[in-house]
Amino acid sequence: MIASSESIDSDPLFPNSERIYCHGKNHKGIAVSMREISLSASEKPNGLVESNEPIKVYDTSGPWGDPNFNGNVTEGLPSLRREWILNRGDVTEYDGRTPVPEDNGYLSDKHAEDYNKKKKAKNRLLEYPGLKRRPLKSDGSGPVTQLHYAREGIITAEMEYIAIRENLGREAAYQAIQDNQKDPRNSMNFAHEGDSLGASTPNFITPEFVRDEIARGRAIIPSNINHPESEPMIIGRNFLVKINANIGNSAVSSSIEEEVEKMRWATKWGADTVMDLSTGKNIHATREWIIRNSPVPIGTVPIYQALEKVNGRVEDLCWEVFRDTLIEQAEQGVDYFTIHAGVLLRFIPQTATRMTGIVSRGGSIMAKWCLAHHKENFLYTHWDDICDIMATYDVSFSIGDGLRPGSIADANDAAQFAELKTQGGLTERAWAKGVQVMNEGPGHVPMHMIKENMEKQIEWCHEAPFYTLGPLTTDIAPAYDHITSGIGAAMIGWYGCAMLCYVTPKEHLGLPNKEDVREGVITYKLAAHAADLAKGHPAAQERDNAISKARFEFRWEDQFNLSLDPDKAREFHDETLPQDGAKTAHFCSMCGPTFCSMKISDEIRQYADENGMNTEEAIQSGMEEKAQEFKDSGSKIYS
Amino acid sequence: MIASSESIDSDPLFPNSERIYCHGKNHKGIAVSMREISLSASEKPNGLVESNEPIKVYDTSGPWGDPNFNGNVTEGLPSLRREWILNRGDVTEYDGRTPVPEDNGYLSDKHAEDYNKKKKAKNRLLEYPGLKRRPLKSDGSGPVTQLHYAREGIITAEMEYIAIRENLGREAAYQAIQDNQKDPRNSMNFAHEGDSLGASTPNFITPEFVRDEIARGRAIIPSNINHPESEPMIIGRNFLVKINANIGNSAVSSSIEEEVEKMRWATKWGADTVMDLSTGKNIHATREWIIRNSPVPIGTVPIYQALEKVNGRVEDLCWEVFRDTLIEQAEQGVDYFTIHAGVLLRFIPQTATRMTGIVSRGGSIMAKWCLAHHKENFLYTHWDDICDIMATYDVSFSIGDGLRPGSIADANDAAQFAELKTQGGLTERAWAKGVQVMNEGPGHVPMHMIKENMEKQIEWCHEAPFYTLGPLTTDIAPAYDHITSGIGAAMIGWYGCAMLCYVTPKEHLGLPNKEDVREGVITYKLAAHAADLAKGHPAAQERDNAISKARFEFRWEDQFNLSLDPDKAREFHDETLPQDGAKTAHFCSMCGPTFCSMKISDEIRQYADENGMNTEEAIQSGMEEKAQEFKDSGSKIYS
Repeated sequence: MIASSESIDSDPLFPNSERIYCHGKNHKGIAVSMREISLSASEKPNGLVESNEPIKVYDTSGPWGDPNFNGNVTEGLPSLRREWILNRGDVTEYDGRTPVPEDNGYLSDKHAEDYNKKKKAKNRLLEYPGLKRRPLKSDGSGPVTQLHYAREGIITAEMEYIAIRENLGREAAYQAIQDNQKDPRNSMNFAHEGDSLGASTPNFITPEFVRDEIARGRAIIPSNINHPESEPMIIGRNFLVKINANIGNSAVSSSIEEEVEKMRWATKWGADTVMDLSTGKNIHATREWIIRNSPVPIGTVPIYQALEKVNGRVEDLCWEVFRDTLIEQAEQGVDYFTIHAGVLLRFIPQTATRMTGIVSRGGSIMAKWCLAHHKENFLYTHWDDICDIMATYDVSFSIGDGLRPGSIADANDAAQFAELKTQGGLTERAWAKGVQVMNEGPGHVPMHMIKENMEKQIEWCHEAPFYTLGPLTTDIAPAYDHITSGIGAAMIGWYGCAMLCYVTPKEHLGLPNKEDVREGVITYKLAAHAADLAKGHPAAQERDNAISKARFEFRWEDQFNLSLDPDKAREFHDETLPQDGAKTAHFCSMCGPTFCSMKISDEIRQYADENGMNTEEAIQSGMEEKAQEFKDSGSKIYS
Repeated sequence: MIASSESIDSDPLFPNSERIYCHGKNHKGIAVSMREISLSASEKPNGLVESNEPIKVYDTSGPWGDPNFNGNVTEGLPSLRREWILNRGDVTEYDGRTPVPEDNGYLSDKHAEDYNKKKKAKNRLLEYPGLKRRPLKSDGSGPVTQLHYAREGIITAEMEYIAIRENLGREAAYQAIQDNQKDPRNSMNFAHEGDSLGASTPNFITPEFVRDEIARGRAIIPSNINHPESEPMIIGRNFLVKINANIGNSAVSSSIEEEVEKMRWATKWGADTVMDLSTGKNIHATREWIIRNSPVPIGTVPIYQALEKVNGRVEDLCWEVFRDTLIEQAEQGVDYFTIHAGVLLRFIPQTATRMTGIVSRGGSIMAKWCLAHHKENFLYTHWDDICDIMATYDVSFSIGDGLRPGSIADANDAAQFAELKTQGGLTERAWAKGVQVMNEGPGHVPMHMIKENMEKQIEWCHEAPFYTLGPLTTDIAPAYDHITSGIGAAMIGWYGCAMLCYVTPKEHLGLPNKEDVREGVITYKLAAHAADLAKGHPAAQERDNAISKARFEFRWEDQFNLSLDPDKAREFHDETLPQDGAKTAHFCSMCGPTFCSMKISDEIRQYADENGMNTEEAIQSGMEEKAQEFKDSGSKIYS
């Protein structure tokens, strides 16, 4: 949730960048969007000029990041995937559930009208004007999930799209995909902890590899058939590490337009998925606006809305209200649901002696329900029914961790691991129904206890993708919890976690504003990238190399443009040296113009080059005589 | 270096905190300063009130953090250690070297006067008015180093002070020290990676343990006998992880008073040592002001000043100028010197093919010197001479890593490791002369290559303390490099690194301002603390537990006060809920007043307590009947 009182600049364009599309071959209409950053040439001290190849980067901004896209939020995004979905011939269009006032937290239309009049339209119920189509569902012939197709040996358009996307536009990989190379490269299991495949490894991700990973349940493609606007992306530990950003209105609510702006802002900076955690009024309407405009998968916690429908009385929750909410949201196009089905009645007493009890909102709702009724969690008892709904729309599970630790003291305790083990059983049952699954994880965990989380999850949940909040590696730094958690996130990403749920500086304290969301997203992008490097993702290091070369050559503009946040990098540089000339100067504010280690380093390189001193023997034999020359020439080769 | 254009609020006092002193027993005058944070009582739902013990935290602010201290910067701090030093009976007072205009970068007194007139006194040469004493040095009977005493079996006052300090004021530990318990607890090797001793482990640090670690070379106490104002602190992997903050004027220079303010600001937030990296004019005068007012050890890179003395001409550097600079700084009281003696002539060609060459300023100075003269690094060839000077004043070595990697591409390469191995040899030679040593480390290193740095350093440098910059785990996030490096810092701290050199958000871009320094220090404090938790430091988790308990009980003020940055935590909270009432409210802005997981969690705890449901059997047998009661009572036990 983001504080409401600010406007958001949603201009998604980055400096010196061009939107490009890489086209697929085996399915019609595949055009994978990427951002290509142009670089200036390197000026060598000897006067030679050497051009630098542009760098392609993963782009989550969707059509909003294409300067040629002229859409607007009331029209929504184009239905990129609709034709692919219809072409599979296993869905049917139908008259969906009719929205009722309760969906938005009102007792009646009259109540809605009165309420919004009183609130002076701040929170007004605004029906989404753009959607002209009816919802789709499975025609009954079987699950319409990517897992189902993968098991059938089918490479869907989504899978081909993802293969291109995950290779970050590298030419060799792209060619191989164009040729529909069938080599599955199942051996391309990234190196977790310890050794790296290295950036030069010629491995790449093929569509067949994607299919295989999906079929094994080791990755998911969140892709509700009613959210055809989304660009396919994959979550799994043999792919780029992904990040999620949370948005959503709250008690102190923001307007619907603001929510759409938040989603666009988060995806501009790189959020791979967005969770809409709205509570209070207008949940249905807000979600509709977000989904219609979102190029990334949208996740929700359906129990939040179900609770609103029973006026916040946990005891009044029941399967029927929940089921109706699932269908409502599935028809809208939510791509994954967080469902806290692992919070079992018998685990609840184990939380009573904890330092911080139950800190998950969904977890505490279900715990309270279980206690009030002394019955098993109805999400657990209705698991198969839930699976059937998910399979009908290809909604993926994000099995909630309702008992995650909220403090260092509670990390890896009995309650947490009891739930994780339960998640494993639920995962298998969902797979049996053809439903895609990921598992949610902690929370607050000190560094030395992080790996155990990943290992147990892989073992107990049979390699389903892990999706964790942080983890936060200490409790003592509120206002800096994007950092306490960024440390844990990078580490667990390296260990194999597939998606990292961001934490903003406002965690534990208040609602994040625009700058907090940016800070949270960038922190998690860099953590995910650090994990990609450590895992040895074959393409990850290209961007590091490009920015480091630019830095060494004092190509300041390139350094800014290649960074995760070009605006802030430029702004920070200009604080000390605002002059235009400083951006081409071969020095920076740290050492000033008269002495610069980068400059000396370049002198050394040149000197070694010119004198054939690149080996130890050469230096032994030839260096002494050259030393005098170097000194004689004023020791200033670089000029 | 910090940008100059702002005033710094150096009020070192924290809310709800009291300065306390823990007194030693075996040496006169030991009064270890700590900050004690008072907490409010817990109000239990049943109406009972339970007090919370205050929490003692490590305090680096020195007398500036004592509201009863009435000193000022022109008088300097009291000479806390002077009597201890004199009582050892092995030093002599003498007429020190007479400062010359060159020490401050001037050709003559006239030049200084003219220069400063032109600069309008911005950069004025201001002699330190307060110091009335002459320098001390060894009387020739042997090294006056803590290492020497430790080997002789002597527990110095500094060691006793440190034992009290490292236990964070825990009562049991303090008692044991009072009783001068002799058990060395050599077995208290913290758990590195994997398993934790746990916060409940009754281990503590005794003076004898401190002595033993110093004697082994596994820890150092930077404590120049001419900096008696410093409060003893220890750097070693079996102690709390320490952090360093860099300050220093630069080409765009700040005034002397501002430099003192920066030091006070950095130590307010928790810097354990401060490096003065000043360049340009007035280096000597600036340093004098800083040292006389610093309660923490001060480090420098003497080659920076030596270079100024030869007008920036690297080729003109020579042993004599350097030696004179070492003595000048040792007499002033610098506690540790970074010396790049491991940059050997034969390693230099190995950097020519690097992505980013040599990025260390000291490293590139020495590389240029070696090339210009085709001679071996004079810091290396004069190592024994340097050691003799260090031993005379107890200046500790921080053996520089001049060939540290400046990019992911260059991490752990031949040049870097060749220098590290050389550091090992230098370490042994320094130890032979009785000099304390730590080794500097990288730099830019991806996560999976960090551990190798630590392992090789331990092996090659014989367990001398490691002191690293970051490491930065990716190159692509300028403006967020406090975070890219905070990740690596926390990890290497866990692996055994003893001190972490901070990185600010301005790294690679410009000079840090006041807020950047605070951001950098807090980021490194939290990284060091995360490492302490992971290493299983027996007292580290107490603060996490206290803040988590406060959080769970909605004691907002306590949560703010216990955090590393109470001001920012409060400010962030108040952005959303500024009302005074919100600070006692049992909800926060995330879920709002009507629904709160912490609140439900507390209901569960109470319910379990009241109904004897703390075991699984109890819930099976008794819970069903209680469920109805719970429901009947309105499911609102908490009120």
